[in-house]
Amino acid sequence: MRFEVTILGSNSATPLYGRNHTAQILNCNETISLIDCGEGTQLQMQRYGLKVNRIKYIFISHLHGDHYLGLVGLISSMHLNGRKEDLYLFGPAGLQEIIDLQLHYAETTLRYNLIFKATNPNHAAYILADTNFDVQSFPLSHRINCTGFVFKQKQRLPKINRALVESLDIPTTYYPLLKQGIDYTDNKGKLHRAIDLTTPAPPPKSYAFCSDTVNTPSYWPYITSVDLLYHEATFLHEMIDRAIETFHTTALQAGEIAKKVGAKQLLIGHFSARYKDLQPLLLESKTVFENTLLAIEGQTFEI
Amino acid sequence: MRFEVTILGSNSATPLYGRNHTAQILNCNETISLIDCGEGTQLQMQRYGLKVNRIKYIFISHLHGDHYLGLVGLISSMHLNGRKEDLYLFGPAGLQEIIDLQLHYAETTLRYNLIFKATNPNHAAYILADTNFDVQSFPLSHRINCTGFVFKQKQRLPKINRALVESLDIPTTYYPLLKQGIDYTDNKGKLHRAIDLTTPAPPPKSYAFCSDTVNTPSYWPYITSVDLLYHEATFLHEMIDRAIETFHTTALQAGEIAKKVGAKQLLIGHFSARYKDLQPLLLESKTVFENTLLAIEGQTFEI
Repeated sequence: MRFEVTILGSNSATPLYGRNHTAQILNCNETISLIDCGEGTQLQMQRYGLKVNRIKYIFISHLHGDHYLGLVGLISSMHLNGRKEDLYLFGPAGLQEIIDLQLHYAETTLRYNLIFKATNPNHAAYILADTNFDVQSFPLSHRINCTGFVFKQKQRLPKINRALVESLDIPTTYYPLLKQGIDYTDNKGKLHRAIDLTTPAPPPKSYAFCSDTVNTPSYWPYITSVDLLYHEATFLHEMIDRAIETFHTTALQAGEIAKKVGAKQLLIGHFSARYKDLQPLLLESKTVFENTLLAIEGQTFEI
Repeated sequence: MRFEVTILGSNSATPLYGRNHTAQILNCNETISLIDCGEGTQLQMQRYGLKVNRIKYIFISHLHGDHYLGLVGLISSMHLNGRKEDLYLFGPAGLQEIIDLQLHYAETTLRYNLIFKATNPNHAAYILADTNFDVQSFPLSHRINCTGFVFKQKQRLPKINRALVESLDIPTTYYPLLKQGIDYTDNKGKLHRAIDLTTPAPPPKSYAFCSDTVNTPSYWPYITSVDLLYHEATFLHEMIDRAIETFHTTALQAGEIAKKVGAKQLLIGHFSARYKDLQPLLLESKTVFENTLLAIEGQTFEI
């Protein structure tokens, strides 16, 4: 089952060096989510051959412009492209008001349903149960209300061992029961254990998105043992005072967090415009957490 | 005196084929104005080496997203870049409310003065008298309130004929009076006419911007005899019904308008996403107005 994230933007505050503002596409078994939506996200999607109307869910972490200013343009383009399917939007409560005001002045009524669900900035909450994955939001600690998101695949059922069940003449109608772990007794009274006739599905994988936050243990319980942790790393650690002052994280801290929560892999982003070369940020994180990667635009990371 | 416009975007509705939404930079004697500000305008400025903090005036024609969604990102970047100088913004009344709401949720107080002046959607009005140029807004006829803008250079004073006035020993303190047309009488009582001692400045030039409008004579008086007319030409004339329905203009009509108002040159833009190749639009306009140009991104047009 495909579970991968594509980076559309990775720069903080002001876009520079061709680096755009935060936006990511998460593909979970061909169900497409957009996580944050900086200015120019729809242009970035075109650039990387991604169709905007395939997006089913949008998750916005907070209302700093570099994380959502592409949203009204994106939902307007979906409208102009003739979208009919419902679109689900999760984000801070004020987002609804911002969208409504802009659509009001444009005298535009969307041709599809935009279903908005406000995130809770104070408590973690399960906000979505899709067929393929669940999503939990949790509070981060930023200058304004900000939430992270964890995307966890659903535990899939075991796979039938076809050759074996066919050799035993087990009726196909019984296959779903075997997958559920229900044993089969044949007409001679012989018991065939479901566990012997199936192969367990791989354990479900998880992706955590921590957009903007100061380093604090309060949100670590929600990102424990994730397979891939995206964490902001706005500054090098020599800028720790500035990081604290602006409620951001250093690359060293991002590496330490990944290590502490037992993440399998770390993806750092939200780079300050002061860094033209990102290698020092990568190297700094790697000093504590070797399995660090840079969130480079256009790259896709398997989770 | 430099008087030129640089195109940052020229596509309508949805951006496509690498064509961005409407935005133009007008340089009048090194005073920089931004006209409309589609999504991604700040990125386009970076791309073409234009500094956002050099912008002194911003003019927004109307509140359809493809004409202003880059604005909040742009003014935020100016804030983050440490801008101190006043910024003057002219646009529909609702724009103030949209900006205030977004800055409110971002908990951002701009470090510079953003001086907003609402345009009048019903009547033409002189809205700016800069040292170098005047600006008049006038109503266009679009689905929502929309104004065009005419930028007219100030008439400059005549130039002193240096060699001549020096040979006549006319005191330099008298030069400003000569420029004003005041004649000089020397100490022998001889009259020297100002007109003979100066060369007239070239006539002031004008640029008109007509962003989105259906073809109607109501606004033609405001764009009469302009040196360069930017006019939208969303469709080919075979789409005239669609143009009327959506309050837009065809390339043929744009050419006809330029001819009727006696424009010296026509720049067409706001191309529909249905046209990958823009040559048919250019050729159609040229059938009635030969001096037509395409508003191509990154190109600068001298007025």
